[in-house]
Amino acid sequence: MTIQPVKGTRDFYPREMAVHNWIVDGWKKISLRNGFEEYDGPIFEYLKMYQVKSGDEIVEQLFSLTDRGGRDLALRPEMTPTLARMVNQQINSLPKPIKWFSVPRLFRAERPQKGRLREFFQWNIDIIGVDDVLADAEVIFTTIDYLRQVGLTSTDIKVKISSREFLAGFLKSIGIPEEKLGDIYVLLDKSAKLPPGVFEELLREQVPDKTISGKILDFMVEQSIEQVRDLTAPNESTESALENLGNVFNYLESMGVGDFCIFNPGIVRGLAYYTGIVFEVHDAVGELRAICGGGRYDNLLKDFGGPSIPATGMGMGDCVLEILLREKGLLEKQLPAGSIDYFVAYVDESYKNQAIRITMELRSKGCSANFSYKAAKLNKQLKQASDQNARKCIIIGQEIESNQLAVKDMTSGEQKLVNLDEFNA
Amino acid sequence: MTIQPVKGTRDFYPREMAVHNWIVDGWKKISLRNGFEEYDGPIFEYLKMYQVKSGDEIVEQLFSLTDRGGRDLALRPEMTPTLARMVNQQINSLPKPIKWFSVPRLFRAERPQKGRLREFFQWNIDIIGVDDVLADAEVIFTTIDYLRQVGLTSTDIKVKISSREFLAGFLKSIGIPEEKLGDIYVLLDKSAKLPPGVFEELLREQVPDKTISGKILDFMVEQSIEQVRDLTAPNESTESALENLGNVFNYLESMGVGDFCIFNPGIVRGLAYYTGIVFEVHDAVGELRAICGGGRYDNLLKDFGGPSIPATGMGMGDCVLEILLREKGLLEKQLPAGSIDYFVAYVDESYKNQAIRITMELRSKGCSANFSYKAAKLNKQLKQASDQNARKCIIIGQEIESNQLAVKDMTSGEQKLVNLDEFNA
Repeated sequence: MTIQPVKGTRDFYPREMAVHNWIVDGWKKISLRNGFEEYDGPIFEYLKMYQVKSGDEIVEQLFSLTDRGGRDLALRPEMTPTLARMVNQQINSLPKPIKWFSVPRLFRAERPQKGRLREFFQWNIDIIGVDDVLADAEVIFTTIDYLRQVGLTSTDIKVKISSREFLAGFLKSIGIPEEKLGDIYVLLDKSAKLPPGVFEELLREQVPDKTISGKILDFMVEQSIEQVRDLTAPNESTESALENLGNVFNYLESMGVGDFCIFNPGIVRGLAYYTGIVFEVHDAVGELRAICGGGRYDNLLKDFGGPSIPATGMGMGDCVLEILLREKGLLEKQLPAGSIDYFVAYVDESYKNQAIRITMELRSKGCSANFSYKAAKLNKQLKQASDQNARKCIIIGQEIESNQLAVKDMTSGEQKLVNLDEFNA
Repeated sequence: MTIQPVKGTRDFYPREMAVHNWIVDGWKKISLRNGFEEYDGPIFEYLKMYQVKSGDEIVEQLFSLTDRGGRDLALRPEMTPTLARMVNQQINSLPKPIKWFSVPRLFRAERPQKGRLREFFQWNIDIIGVDDVLADAEVIFTTIDYLRQVGLTSTDIKVKISSREFLAGFLKSIGIPEEKLGDIYVLLDKSAKLPPGVFEELLREQVPDKTISGKILDFMVEQSIEQVRDLTAPNESTESALENLGNVFNYLESMGVGDFCIFNPGIVRGLAYYTGIVFEVHDAVGELRAICGGGRYDNLLKDFGGPSIPATGMGMGDCVLEILLREKGLLEKQLPAGSIDYFVAYVDESYKNQAIRITMELRSKGCSANFSYKAAKLNKQLKQASDQNARKCIIIGQEIESNQLAVKDMTSGEQKLVNLDEFNA
């Protein structure tokens, strides 16, 4: 019987695992230095948790299952609903603001393609309990802190920032009714991925009035905050949104990452629950999907049966990131070399127990060590040591009769005799 | 809408996550120093992969799902089938022996109870390509290396070792036919968990001949290798098995962990694919389920369409381990304290941008730092610093006008003025 892996999943052999660990370790390190605490939740939740607030695209792509008790479950396609559930459950005992991060494994039954798999990892950071857009700016800073740390510069990537609050105000000011906003967000979110003609056609299906759809097309073009303000009939909601947008850019300037950030009214985000600042990070060339995205979702915890509490966050998948880092030549050279401290070789089967004992003592003392399972020819054992990237090779030969070992430095090739005591506990 | 977590799953709030990370980091560190390389596979595989070789109990407890393409999948209940599939796929290019470890998240639809959840983590180590029981001994050593590292002694825990090869030889020598062995293994594996009367009754259902079932009951009692040898009509297979058992104990003695290890013919293991040495680690009191278990499975890769290649391994779940470590008082005191390097406070809203800038510069330099989102009363900000376990608190007050900051050591309480330059990039 030969069995294949399931389409859209990945096998992490040691080489791929080293890449994965390097990415995840970086996410964790940057989260911790930015003051976030780690959490995690279950791989599956009740299906209905995603049907309510995640938006149609996510619901269509759910991996769902029914357990033996007849419960309808789904593999988590995103982390935010779990976060909202967990925070709501302990809302009274958790110190605020809550700054949490996680690196969940997520599942979406999409058509596998470049940068999109059915099973992937996503770095999530969230700040709950701060209504000041300072928290949005901090989420964006933390995102940049990571991308800058792995070597990406402000010429490689851009953080494109907009506001759902402003977009909603604009759309309502030109006559779009509240109940149509959700569908329009989903469509506008796809605008950059669709051929211009197709997008315009789909927009006219949603908004038959050509004057109104024309205004939306004018709005979506990359331009300054001042220019979009001029397109809008000002009202309380748009004025407050523009003030927030201005503040977020000021904060990002204070944080020293202003050069990474630009305003782009075409950023909408597909998820249904965003309410304020939204952003995406894109490679400057624009040939890949978004590296990450996020925004403010002030109503989600309340929608999930909790209190009304402001929240903002970001999610970054591992697939597009890895492609970009490889393309920029930033991945291979930063990977830590897999190596061991010692390899223990022996020239005769009669020294095997000595070799075993020395290896295990080295390990017990905290050194990484391997040994040969057989007294193969010394050259073969040295090759094994070299293949395993051992820093030193201990060779047990007849000198062991006078309590001595040969220790070979695998980098310099230098070899010297050392007393056995040095390798005893 | 209020949504509950699914029965048998866990939420890892930062406090639980710290425990989880400490356990997993320990597993990884010990694996690496014992010369294992990390790998991982997908969360789900084709259902049939588990139906073939995992044994009935695992198959009954599978979380299965059908994807949109009509494929029958299952959440992985154990890691070994994925390991076998992955190794077979690259059998010609992988250097042998293969020493791999993984910390997969696994899923079994069991009745949740003490030490058993539907979703758990399991440390796996495997050595593929070594037929010498030296590899079995090394797997056992690595297991003990971890348990000893976290503070468990040979009076707290015992590694109980037996041999499927010997058990098979014994059962056949007393007249049990080959095709009944599988069912008898499953029953014998449960013997310690069943009330003696119930076990004996179930055994007599499988083996109606009282002389034969009596011999099996005699065999299962804790006793020496010599004693079980006397119960057996010696044949080639039992003699080879006994030699292997003797060798494994000799190797464990050389490795310096002989005091942890005892022979126990009652150790059988439930999984169908074991072929040689089998072992379990139990708490000495015997009140918990097995902490871990493993053994040799020389036919599995071949059964999965690969070459005939020997293999041995171990799996340790996180649930029973955590219970034992808590009971022994070994958990809380070894957890690293969650702390940050700096908390940045400021006495007036006009210093907010300075606070933001200093915080972000500290982070960019690699320090962990948090700040107050508001110029709250200084006492309140100091309490926040203390709640977050900050080592130092920077206070921005009017001294900033002369380019100075107060830096308070949160342990000693000492406070001094420092030039702003020291906190600039």
